Amino acid sequence: MNIRITIEYDGEPFVGWQIQTNGPSIQETLEKAIQRVTGEYVFVRGAGRTDAGVHARAQVANFRAPSAMTPDQWRKALNALLPTTIRILQAEEADPSFDALKNARGKVYEYRVLNTRVASALDRRVYFYPGRLDWESMARCLPLFVGRQDFRCFQGARASVKTTVRDLNRFELFEEPGGLFRFEIEGSGFLKQMVRAVVGTVIEVGEGRRDGSRIPDVIASGDRRLAGRTLPACGLCLLEVKY
Amino acid sequence: MNIRITIEYDGEPFVGWQIQTNGPSIQETLEKAIQRVTGEYVFVRGAGRTDAGVHARAQVANFRAPSAMTPDQWRKALNALLPTTIRILQAEEADPSFDALKNARGKVYEYRVLNTRVASALDRRVYFYPGRLDWESMARCLPLFVGRQDFRCFQGARASVKTTVRDLNRFELFEEPGGLFRFEIEGSGFLKQMVRAVVGTVIEVGEGRRDGSRIPDVIASGDRRLAGRTLPACGLCLLEVKY
Repeated sequence: MNIRITIEYDGEPFVGWQIQTNGPSIQETLEKAIQRVTGEYVFVRGAGRTDAGVHARAQVANFRAPSAMTPDQWRKALNALLPTTIRILQAEEADPSFDALKNARGKVYEYRVLNTRVASALDRRVYFYPGRLDWESMARCLPLFVGRQDFRCFQGARASVKTTVRDLNRFELFEEPGGLFRFEIEGSGFLKQMVRAVVGTVIEVGEGRRDGSRIPDVIASGDRRLAGRTLPACGLCLLEVKY
Repeated sequence: MNIRITIEYDGEPFVGWQIQTNGPSIQETLEKAIQRVTGEYVFVRGAGRTDAGVHARAQVANFRAPSAMTPDQWRKALNALLPTTIRILQAEEADPSFDALKNARGKVYEYRVLNTRVASALDRRVYFYPGRLDWESMARCLPLFVGRQDFRCFQGARASVKTTVRDLNRFELFEEPGGLFRFEIEGSGFLKQMVRAVVGTVIEVGEGRRDGSRIPDVIASGDRRLAGRTLPACGLCLLEVKY
């Protein structure tokens, strides 16, 4: 049976989705839990490889289940075996051809910025920024990122993909109580560290260090050095995978 | 100088406010950070001893500062030395007679219950309850706890206080998005584990295992065995200390 799971995780204690040698990954932790149920290694295919420290509200993955358990029995069994920092929100039987990575049509990410004088001990899933930011000028430049564009200038180092063109469908800013600001960004897919560099570029507009109206020139340049800094992973969260 | 600090902390990695031998306490972590600044041991007096795993949005404490730093310099220095799970939100000069414990007139606590099918990996500061709860009958019994009463029946074991009479001024229930329910309880002071046992008693009303209208009999009995179970510390948070 091809089982599709929706997974929430706190990325803080993990080296990211993909298996690494320097610590536990989400994928590896899931595979080990499944192996404790089935007695054999089962590959878990994720919709996207979130980086070390990045969180997920609804990552999607699939795996082939050799045993005769129902998807809901799988959900319960895995939640009993996984650390509390990873939860299977849902498990369902998928079409045998379903592939969480190849069939993904788009993703929604959130990037959270806490703009208060002092950081929070209770909400550490943010980029803490104690200084003054011009949120209006930041909101104004967001539409300039939207569209089918070559986002090469926001790509992290040592990335190798066939094309750096992506469709960015939506980029919004929401203000929440307590000095919390939330960027939501939706696209066909994202380059390595792209969301963090895009939001980092917007933050530099808010700092007054960068003219928001010049964003199209930065994108056209394709030059990583002309875009903004890559913000910390802890503020980033995968909200949804679209199929 | 007598410095009054307002402290936020994530109680999860700590053995509680008070110094213990089995792990780091909030008080000890603060005292060590102050000692790194002054070079000598400085006692930190807290408004209340939160138990192991209990969080705080605004715990209050005071200490005598031997050096010539301003309160705001203290705030910055301590935040630079403390783990990210403890933040000094505010530091101010207090009257020389100010004592965070003795002068406290009341406290406000919050107890959070997550009533969803699956626990959350991202919000673990809750009591996770996947079953059905009758929130209306729970809300209806809350006023029965309010008033000046002997709360002995909700006191944890091995507690020794002069009197178990307390003023409970307010006890409210708020429903928030995503299956989250928040109890807010305000009183002159609370016995050891009292909030967790009070909310545990209310939860048993919601489970249908206990008649809410009989709460006054439970309180009158003074018998710990007739009250409800003590809920986990992770759902509890000290919101405010009143002076």
